[in-house]
Amino acid sequence: MKTNNIVYDNGQLTLLDQTQLPQKTAYVTITTYEETAQAIEQMIIRGAPLIGITAAYGVVLGARQYTSGDFYTYMQQVLSRLEHTRPTAINLKWALNRMESVITSDAQETIRLLEKEAAAIYEEDIAINRRIGEALLPLIKEGDAFITHCNPGALATSAYGTATAPFYLAHEANINFKVYSDETRPRLQGALTAYELQNAGIDVTTITDSTAATLLSSGKIKAVIVGCDRVTANGDVINKIGTLPLAICAQYYNVPFYVAAPTPTFDSTILDSAKVPIEERDNTEITHIQDYALAIQDIQVYNPAFDITPATLITGLATEYGLIKADRTSIEQIVNTIR
Amino acid sequence: MKTNNIVYDNGQLTLLDQTQLPQKTAYVTITTYEETAQAIEQMIIRGAPLIGITAAYGVVLGARQYTSGDFYTYMQQVLSRLEHTRPTAINLKWALNRMESVITSDAQETIRLLEKEAAAIYEEDIAINRRIGEALLPLIKEGDAFITHCNPGALATSAYGTATAPFYLAHEANINFKVYSDETRPRLQGALTAYELQNAGIDVTTITDSTAATLLSSGKIKAVIVGCDRVTANGDVINKIGTLPLAICAQYYNVPFYVAAPTPTFDSTILDSAKVPIEERDNTEITHIQDYALAIQDIQVYNPAFDITPATLITGLATEYGLIKADRTSIEQIVNTIR
Repeated sequence: MKTNNIVYDNGQLTLLDQTQLPQKTAYVTITTYEETAQAIEQMIIRGAPLIGITAAYGVVLGARQYTSGDFYTYMQQVLSRLEHTRPTAINLKWALNRMESVITSDAQETIRLLEKEAAAIYEEDIAINRRIGEALLPLIKEGDAFITHCNPGALATSAYGTATAPFYLAHEANINFKVYSDETRPRLQGALTAYELQNAGIDVTTITDSTAATLLSSGKIKAVIVGCDRVTANGDVINKIGTLPLAICAQYYNVPFYVAAPTPTFDSTILDSAKVPIEERDNTEITHIQDYALAIQDIQVYNPAFDITPATLITGLATEYGLIKADRTSIEQIVNTIR
Repeated sequence: MKTNNIVYDNGQLTLLDQTQLPQKTAYVTITTYEETAQAIEQMIIRGAPLIGITAAYGVVLGARQYTSGDFYTYMQQVLSRLEHTRPTAINLKWALNRMESVITSDAQETIRLLEKEAAAIYEEDIAINRRIGEALLPLIKEGDAFITHCNPGALATSAYGTATAPFYLAHEANINFKVYSDETRPRLQGALTAYELQNAGIDVTTITDSTAATLLSSGKIKAVIVGCDRVTANGDVINKIGTLPLAICAQYYNVPFYVAAPTPTFDSTILDSAKVPIEERDNTEITHIQDYALAIQDIQVYNPAFDITPATLITGLATEYGLIKADRTSIEQIVNTIR
């Protein structure tokens, strides 16, 4: 389940413009790190893993733009610009740290090393997602139904997606099951999930975010599976706004709640999730759909893009090292394995 | 806080077209019971109390259209057409039962009696809402913040609204407080709440439905106050989709959850809320905003208009007889008082 959402070729990065999906399939071609930063800010591409991959290629484009002066100082500017695009997803910083670690004083050599590193991040992401899918695949039996939120799909990653990976693998294994996709206001990324799952031939149904509780109360839902933008050291999960009420309702009805969490989303520096910066986005995301006004003018709006789900509400974190508990000990074990 | 959302004058009913708010203030004038039925079905007017009042005037219009044949049989057709417009709100049936009870074999006399009864339902609704507001008013202190859902406002009733009545009374009493208004997908009736509260000078902020959980987790919310379309004999509440997750999240964070419940919404015939018919509305409510497609074509949609909140999640029902517990004994007491 590979998508064409990001293609790098010799100094040119082509991105599938996700702001135009599912109405229109359009591509944006960019050649500078500033254009890369803007593509991330404007959500041309989105989803924590894909933000990381795109930023990595942004560093490559930045290095190729270098003309004169101290190369290392210049590259710090490039890294800093890309880092300050979106504050919540930790993959961004993780990818930029990896890219920074291969920078030498030789610009030509660095470009070659950066291209190799970005390609490695991309390829590793495919492998990570597949392994996350394998960790959750045993959950999916014939006739089961699941709820997912936002787009933790192939479009948000290199391939397979994170939370959608078990769905793709189960479909490959000819299991029949049903996915309910929260529309995910305000930006309706659930439409992207519906788009990619339906295109793959998976039985998917769109619901408003607040309909999930009714489904959970019905006894028909086997589990909720979502992605994440950051996991704190104690297992709290920062993900798209709407994840928290979904987790609370799942617990209320005793439905297991799984988070697909590639280890690049782990942030072992933060124990207190209240310290994670939560991006607040523009009012117009809530007051308008394209040019159509949904609300009165000058209405006050509160629009946080993410919420924080406490570890106590999470049944398990599906990582590329298997399914683990959302607690400090289990996360430390994984982090120590990687080191 | 009286609105001009329904005005009856000598065989002519003028309705504020709520499907065009808040973008446009437009009115629809109707003179037949069929037009009344269609206005209810198309949600030109909405909200359980206003549906009841409108249907009552629909019976008046029907009686005035009578030409020949058995009057009583004819009026049964009128009542039946109006009753089958929307299935969930019980006020509709309650209002039609009241209207039916004054029908005699004399058409001219009946028209006079029906006009009087419809006006009485309208005037009683104003008094009921004011008393609901008084029951919840002690809750609102300087600096408090509240969440509400859908539009249980003046626009949904004769005046004051149900869940909004305490807000209007507190504002009249010069108390400063804050209301967060869920946008309420799919039909965004929260925009109507924001519209009417902002017009009244009340501090109101629009949020997506799934942002409520984050606010509830913040400790800033004094209480959630919502309206309802039906209350079962054991205190379960049927209200706009999204009420259930809000109630579950409020309980999770120990925030009181009040339901403004005029006794015409009480349905003492139903003990098992699973037996309440839940209206499923058209897919396009989710897939489109006006002509703009939010989703891919042919996507499957599940679109129940209401959900069922169990009595155990409800702190209190605010009725025109004061605040009562959401349990069978308290509801029986009130129902016996009315009889």
